[in-house]
This record gives sequence, C-alpha cells and structure tokens, in this order.
Amino acid sequence: MIEIAVDMMGSDLGPTVLAKAVKDYHREHKDIHFTCFGKENVLKEAFQGEEGITIVNTTEVIPMEIKPLDFLRRKDSSMYRAIESVRNKTCQAVVSAGSTGGFISGATILLRNIPGVTRAGLCAAFPTCRKDKAAVILDVGANNVNTAEDLVCFAKMGRIYAKEVLKEENPKVYTLSNGLEEGKGTDEIVAAYKLLKESNFPGFMGNTEAREVLDGEHDVVVTPGFSGNILLKACEGTASLVSKLTKKAFLKNLFTKIGYLFAKGGFKDMKESMNYKKYGGAILLGVNGVAVKGHGNSDAYAFYNAIDVARRMVENHIVEKIEEIGK
Amino acid sequence: MIEIAVDMMGSDLGPTVLAKAVKDYHREHKDIHFTCFGKENVLKEAFQGEEGITIVNTTEVIPMEIKPLDFLRRKDSSMYRAIESVRNKTCQAVVSAGSTGGFISGATILLRNIPGVTRAGLCAAFPTCRKDKAAVILDVGANNVNTAEDLVCFAKMGRIYAKEVLKEENPKVYTLSNGLEEGKGTDEIVAAYKLLKESNFPGFMGNTEAREVLDGEHDVVVTPGFSGNILLKACEGTASLVSKLTKKAFLKNLFTKIGYLFAKGGFKDMKESMNYKKYGGAILLGVNGVAVKGHGNSDAYAFYNAIDVARRMVENHIVEKIEEIGK
Repeated sequence: MIEIAVDMMGSDLGPTVLAKAVKDYHREHKDIHFTCFGKENVLKEAFQGEEGITIVNTTEVIPMEIKPLDFLRRKDSSMYRAIESVRNKTCQAVVSAGSTGGFISGATILLRNIPGVTRAGLCAAFPTCRKDKAAVILDVGANNVNTAEDLVCFAKMGRIYAKEVLKEENPKVYTLSNGLEEGKGTDEIVAAYKLLKESNFPGFMGNTEAREVLDGEHDVVVTPGFSGNILLKACEGTASLVSKLTKKAFLKNLFTKIGYLFAKGGFKDMKESMNYKKYGGAILLGVNGVAVKGHGNSDAYAFYNAIDVARRMVENHIVEKIEEIGK
Repeated sequence: MIEIAVDMMGSDLGPTVLAKAVKDYHREHKDIHFTCFGKENVLKEAFQGEEGITIVNTTEVIPMEIKPLDFLRRKDSSMYRAIESVRNKTCQAVVSAGSTGGFISGATILLRNIPGVTRAGLCAAFPTCRKDKAAVILDVGANNVNTAEDLVCFAKMGRIYAKEVLKEENPKVYTLSNGLEEGKGTDEIVAAYKLLKESNFPGFMGNTEAREVLDGEHDVVVTPGFSGNILLKACEGTASLVSKLTKKAFLKNLFTKIGYLFAKGGFKDMKESMNYKKYGGAILLGVNGVAVKGHGNSDAYAFYNAIDVARRMVENHIVEKIEEIGK
C-alpha cells in the first residue's frame, strides 16, 4: 500500500477539482491510499460517498506568495501538514497544487536534503517534437544561483528520474548554455561541463542551447534555477502566444472557419502533443521524500497525472536511488 | 548622405542573398551609400550592373565560432574592415550577418563603449501578440554576467531605442525575473530593481516573467546576457516546434489538407505576425557607432530590414542620445 498525502487547498481551481482527480485515481488504483488535508467541511462535501479516503482537517491555507518564515508559522495549514506527514513517515509522497514558493520552502525545510545532495532541484518534464517523449529539465526554480557541484548533482538526479520514471534506458544529459562549445556560458556552466566530462558522466553530451531542448533528442537538461525558470516560462509564453494566434487565424473569416472544421482532427493530435498537463507537474528532487508540485491552475486531468508521478516516484524508489549518490 | 558598411561574408546563405538586399535597399533609398566588404570577384559578380555601390576587397572571412584574439588577428577580414570603417568614421553604421561572437568582440574592441556605458548590450526586437508591436529585449548575449549598474544602463539604452527607433512614446520598462514581486530573482536583479525604482526611472514597471514578455504590453525588458540568450532561444525553439506541429497537423489526412486550403488566409497573417525577420536583427547598443547584426541565416528580406534598422539608428542619432547618458 502506498500512502499519498494531498494538499487540497490553495490551488487556482479549488478543492472540488482536485477531489475529482483523487477520486478517479483512487477508483483505478486500489493499492493507493490517500490522506487529504484541508477544510473538513469542504472536503467532506467534495468526497461525499467516497470510501477509503482519509480527511484531515486543517485551519489555514498557504497563500500563493509566501516567505519561508511565514510558511513555518502556518503549522496548521494544509500544505504544512501534508508535507509533515511525509517527514514523519505517515505518508510516502506529498502532492500539492498550491503555492510553488511555499511548497519548495516547506519541502526543503521540513524534509531536508538527502545527504550528498548539495541543493534540491525542481524538475519539470517538457513536451517535445516527438510524441510522448519528454525532456526533463532541472532546476526550473527551486534556486536562483547554483554552483557547478549543484549542477552535477542535478545531472545525477535528472538521470535517475529519466531512467527510472520515464524509462529512458540511456538518457542523454546536457548542460544548458548560450553556445555549444566547451567554455561557453557562465563560470558555473563551464565548471560543470568540465566536471561532467572528466568524470565520464554516463550519457553526457555537452552543452545545448534553449533552441534545441524541445527537439526530442534531449532527455535531461541541467541549469541553474534562475535560467531554468526563464526557459520554462519562455516556452510556456511562446506556446500560449502561438495558440492564441492559431485561434485567431481560424476565426478570421468564413473560409478559415470552414478550414477549421476540416483540419481539427490534426490539431487535436497537436494539442495532445503539446499538453504539458499530461506530465502532471514538477518534482522537487533531492529532498527526503517524494514531493510533487502540480501547476497552480491544475484541472482534474493535470492533478491526476501529478498524483501518478508521485506514485511512480515511490514505486521506483527514486528517493532511495538518489540516496546512493551520497554514498 | 548616410554611409553604411556591409560585411558581405560569413552568413549562412552567402553574399548573393545579402547583395540582393543591398541592391533593393539602394534602389529605394537614394540617400544611402553602401560600402561592401568581401571577396572582390564574388561581390563584383553579385553587384554586376549596379551603380553607386563601393566594393572593398578583403581576403579573410571570420568563421562562425571565433575567439576575440583570433578576431583581432584577422585584420583583412570583411567583418574587421567593415567595423573598422565605422571606427575611422568613413561609415556611420555597420551591418553583418556573420559570426555573432566575432561581431560582438569586434565591435566592442574596435568601437569601444560610449563613456558612461558600463557594458554594451545586444538588443533584439521580439514579435508579440499585438500586430506590429515589438518587445525590445537586452542583453540577449553580448555578456554572460551583468551587474545591477549594467542592467540600469540597458534600461536607459533600451528606452532610447524604443522611443526613438520604434517610436513608442512612453516605453514601459521591466526587469526580467522569476517572479513579479520586488526581491525576486538573483542579487543583480534585486539591486537593479531597487536602483530603477529609487531613481524613478521613467516607465519602470517592476519585474516581469518570461511568460509575459510577448503579451504586447512590454516595450523594454532588461536582463543579464546569459538569461536573455536563454529567453531568445527558448522563444525561437518553441515557435519552431509549434510551427512544425502545425504543418504536421495540416498534413495529417485529406480532410486536414482541405482544411488548410480554406484556412491558409488566416495563417498567412499569423506567419507575418510571428516573423522575426521583419525586425532585421539585433543591435549592439552602447558602442561608439551603429552596429547591427542580422541573423546568421538572414534571407534578403531579413537583411534588408537589418539595413533599415541601421539607417533608422543613424537618422535618429541613437549613438549621440546614448552619449547623453554618460554626461
């Protein structure tokens, strides 16, 4: 039996949407038990008639923007209690669609880094050119600045994730830089390249550029958190811009509208390819426990997939495998 | 009369394509004189029958990847000579579609920074949601790391460019970060935010995120070169991914192909909106002279627009206006 803690509060679309995901997942996976943290009356109504789900009443909600110290003061918040249940081993994984900043602070402070992990990294799977092939990128925002040693650690953790969870047998690993040649980029990137190359890091392919990471050939891309966050949001922003323009193109006049009726079958596939929701969320790799952060605006489908990532992390013993790094 | 120096060598598509742009521009702008640097026999053929264009024979070509010292050794390369002609005031602007690294090294070393400019910044205009509205982003790759003072300088130069060249009356200026609130981001971003806010910098709107920069509301976005380069290439990469998937969607089956025939009018507008080629290239702001770098794979249309940017830079006295910053 796998015990998953769910922070039901603080997401954009509210607990009812998340409850649908939990119920759907619960019905299809009898070996998973859920402990859901949030306002009791709200959750009782959302889970009405559903058996085998534990509800834990919490009185506070972590707001979207919160400082680490403020997080620690809100000890009876759904997010704090959910993370705490992993710390005290009641649950094996925590899933939340609440504040990203709060979740990162909370998980790194309460769960602490695995010995040997210099910094935890937020790891996101990006959709690529190739159907059902994701590129794993970390860190996308747990840190601002990272040392070369952090980047090497990200490479190790990202590789474990790509291998064990995404079942990529020989993951290709890259450092994100502003040019392909060795020596390009900031001091940390240059030093990380050297460390990875000199240690014959398995699958290390050298530098890559942001233009290439979605080409379907990249399994793991490591970057300091600040630039990883820029990369993630630039991809999201451009995809959203193009999607708006596509809609506008089809709505231009009667002809283009008729065109849409004929073409929509093709665009359904495309939407599916580009749908980051199927990857469920970002994983905080490197802490003592499975911690998955769904997108703030997760719908039931996205949150279902975030739960699925958590289950696969537990089943494939990712935390234990990361512990090996430090030994 | 405006004198423009053109580096004809080292671009992906070769001198004939660039010559077409020069010829087209020359015919439409009788007040512009061109001095074209490159292999004489190649250029003579490319400009056959065209009057009033000066050809200067050069024996070397700067390769795509070059270190600053190697650049300085190639004194008879088309790029060196073209930049040199601006240094010795023979020409008022230089345009190249060759090596970006070489061009940045060459222009910063040969032309030097304007007094008061801590670092020159490569400035690119990005297409946005709003038709014919560009977002000016700098630095996109002249530097790796930048100080808060550099970022303030980028804000000043970007604002001058948006106001004088893009004719945006009250440009909105942002710092690129990983969150909107003051205090988010790396130390340099936090410090730059503070400097801009405390000096009541005209139009300073605070932080922005990479997801928002293409929304049509941003005029100037300042960032250290490394993250700016990631932003630029992530936008390019995602746009190219989506464009590939769109093509695939329309080619899926007979229905989707018929759909394309009906819808293509709408997509033509979209392509035009997204076409970064209409912005011609990136401008190295902060050096003593107008230096415009077209995309390596510039076609005649893109290079024509790069030339046009150079002319507008000269006509609007951008270098002189940046000199005011230091006074």
